[in-house]
Amino acid sequence: MDKLSVLHRFIDTIEQYQLLKKGGHVLAGISGGADSVCLLDLLRMIAPKYKLQVSGIHINHGIRGNADQDEMFVRNLTQQWDIRLVVVKVDTPTFARKHRMSLETAARHLRYLHYQRTAKKLACDRVALGHTADDNLETVIHNLVRGAGLRGLCGIPVHRDIFIRPLIKITRKEIRSYLEAKSLKWVEDETNTDVRYTRNLIRLQIIPIMEKINPAVRENVLRTGELLRSEDCFLETLAQKALSRIGKFNSKRVLIDIKRFNSYNLVLKRRIIKLIAPEISSDHVERIVDLITRKCPGSHYIQAGVVVRIRDEGAEITRKVSKSVNGD
Amino acid sequence: MDKLSVLHRFIDTIEQYQLLKKGGHVLAGISGGADSVCLLDLLRMIAPKYKLQVSGIHINHGIRGNADQDEMFVRNLTQQWDIRLVVVKVDTPTFARKHRMSLETAARHLRYLHYQRTAKKLACDRVALGHTADDNLETVIHNLVRGAGLRGLCGIPVHRDIFIRPLIKITRKEIRSYLEAKSLKWVEDETNTDVRYTRNLIRLQIIPIMEKINPAVRENVLRTGELLRSEDCFLETLAQKALSRIGKFNSKRVLIDIKRFNSYNLVLKRRIIKLIAPEISSDHVERIVDLITRKCPGSHYIQAGVVVRIRDEGAEITRKVSKSVNGD
Repeated sequence: MDKLSVLHRFIDTIEQYQLLKKGGHVLAGISGGADSVCLLDLLRMIAPKYKLQVSGIHINHGIRGNADQDEMFVRNLTQQWDIRLVVVKVDTPTFARKHRMSLETAARHLRYLHYQRTAKKLACDRVALGHTADDNLETVIHNLVRGAGLRGLCGIPVHRDIFIRPLIKITRKEIRSYLEAKSLKWVEDETNTDVRYTRNLIRLQIIPIMEKINPAVRENVLRTGELLRSEDCFLETLAQKALSRIGKFNSKRVLIDIKRFNSYNLVLKRRIIKLIAPEISSDHVERIVDLITRKCPGSHYIQAGVVVRIRDEGAEITRKVSKSVNGD
Repeated sequence: MDKLSVLHRFIDTIEQYQLLKKGGHVLAGISGGADSVCLLDLLRMIAPKYKLQVSGIHINHGIRGNADQDEMFVRNLTQQWDIRLVVVKVDTPTFARKHRMSLETAARHLRYLHYQRTAKKLACDRVALGHTADDNLETVIHNLVRGAGLRGLCGIPVHRDIFIRPLIKITRKEIRSYLEAKSLKWVEDETNTDVRYTRNLIRLQIIPIMEKINPAVRENVLRTGELLRSEDCFLETLAQKALSRIGKFNSKRVLIDIKRFNSYNLVLKRRIIKLIAPEISSDHVERIVDLITRKCPGSHYIQAGVVVRIRDEGAEITRKVSKSVNGD
C-alpha cells in the first residue's frame, strides 16, 4: 500500500459511482479522526482536477471529554489548508433525553441534520463522509448479529441523496499509513459508549479472524452489499408500485384493497406493510400480513400506535405518527 | 436447557414447517457424531406420535483414520435401538481425484447421492439430517466472508426436496447437554481438513464474540435467513418467468431476444444469466449482461466454456456442459 494507491482508489470510486460533479461544492464532515483528515486531504488533492470547491463542517457534540480540543484541532487544520469551516455546537445529551434516544442515535441524528442544513446554506451539492471499508464490514457484521434483514446486510451505501462516501473501498489501516506517510496528524476518538464497545469487539476480535479465513473479506462484503442493495431496491420499487395500485391514502390512514393485496406474493405483502408503517418490527409486519390475508374482522392494535381495522371496504391501517424530531 | 426443551423445539420445528407426514418413512443420516445421535434419538422418541418408520444410513467415507470404528459405533447403536441401518462404503479420495474435487466437496457429493439412492430403495419419503443452529450460523458467516450473494446469506434450508433438518433451531451445546442428560455416547469427528480448520476458527473464535454482542445471534441469523430466502425465491421465480418469455432453448444453447432482455431490470438480467449458466462467477455474469445490454457484436469467450455470440437474431449463450458426476 502506498499513498498513490489510496489516491487512485479514491478517484476510482468517485469515477465509478459518479460521486462528484465538476465545478461542484463539497461539504466534508470533519470529526478530526484519521478517516476525516484523510478525506479532507484527498478532496483538496483532487480539487483542481474536478474544479471543486471544498468546505468543511465540524459538529461539536458536547459529549467527549476533549470535544473542544478536537474542535480546535479541526479549526487549525482547515485554517492551515485554507478551507472554509463551519462549526456547529450541539447539546447531544439534552437532545437525547428530550427525544428518548440513545446518545449514539441522537448524535447521529444531529450530525446528519446539520450536514443537510449547512449544505443548503452554503449551496453545497455534495456532503462527503469518511466511512471506510472497515466501517462497512463492521456495520454488516453488527447487523448480521442483530438480525437485520436484507437492508442491514447491504452495509453502508456509497451514495444516498447528497451524501457520498468516497473512502468506502479503502481500509482503516491504509488510511493510517497514508496519513503517516504524509506526516499528517489526527485525533483519536475517546468516547466509550456501548456502540463503541460492540464496535471494538467486532474490530479487534472478529475481523482479524475473518481476515485469516479470507484476506479479501472487506472487498467481498462490499461487493455482496452492492448486489444485495440492487435486489433490495428492485423489490422496494415493486412494492411501491403495488402499494400505489391497492392503497388509498388519507392523512394518517391507508385503506388497502384486501382482494388485490392478496393477489401479491408474501414478499411484496411484507414490503407493502413495511412501506406503510416503517416503525414496526418484522414480527408485527408478519402479524398484519396475516390479519389482512385471513381477513380477520375488527380492530387490531399492533405496536407503536399502529392499528389495523379489517372492514368490508378494505383493511385500514392507522398510524400515530410521532412529531418529527427537531434539532433546534 | 433441559431434555424436554430440546424435544419440544424439535417437534415445534417439525410442526411449523410440516417436515413429516404421519405414517411416513424417514431415513436419518447418522455419522455417529453428537448431532446425528441426538437426531436419531429424537426421531425414535416421536415415532409413535407420528406413526413413523425410522431407518438409518451411515456413509463410511474411507477418509478418517477411525472410519471403521465410527461405522461400528453406528452399527451397535442402531442395533441396540432396533433401527434398520444401511451402511454405504465409498472411496472418497479416489472419487475426489477422478473428478478434481476437494475431499470435502467429494464427500458431500457422495453423501447426498447415497442418501437419495437409499431413500428411493427403501421407499423413504424423507431424509433427516442433523444440521444445527450452529451449523447454520457457521455457514452464513463463512459465506459472508467468502462474498457469497443473497443465496449464501440465507444459510441452510430447513427443508429442500426430501431433505429435512429438524435440529436447525437447536444449538450444538443443547445437543451435548441432551445427550449427557440421557447418558448417550457419540463419536468425535477427527478429520482435520481445510474446511474444518476454517470452521473451527468461526466456531471457537468468531461465534463466542458474536454471542457476547447478542446472545440471540443464532435465532437472529435463522430468522433473517428465512426472510432472505423468501425474497431470493421470489426474485428467482420472476427471473424464471422472464427467461421463459425471452429465451429459446436448444440443447446446449439459449437464444435471447436482446430487445426484450433489455426491458428488464438489471437485477433480473443478472438472475436470467445465472439461470442459463449457473457455473460462472458473478463478475462474469456482469460481463455477459453488459455485452448483451450494449449489443457488442461478435463471439465472446467468457469462462468455463461459456461463449456469448451477439447476432442479429439475438444473443446466443453456449455452454460446455460438463459430464454429470457419477458416484458409481
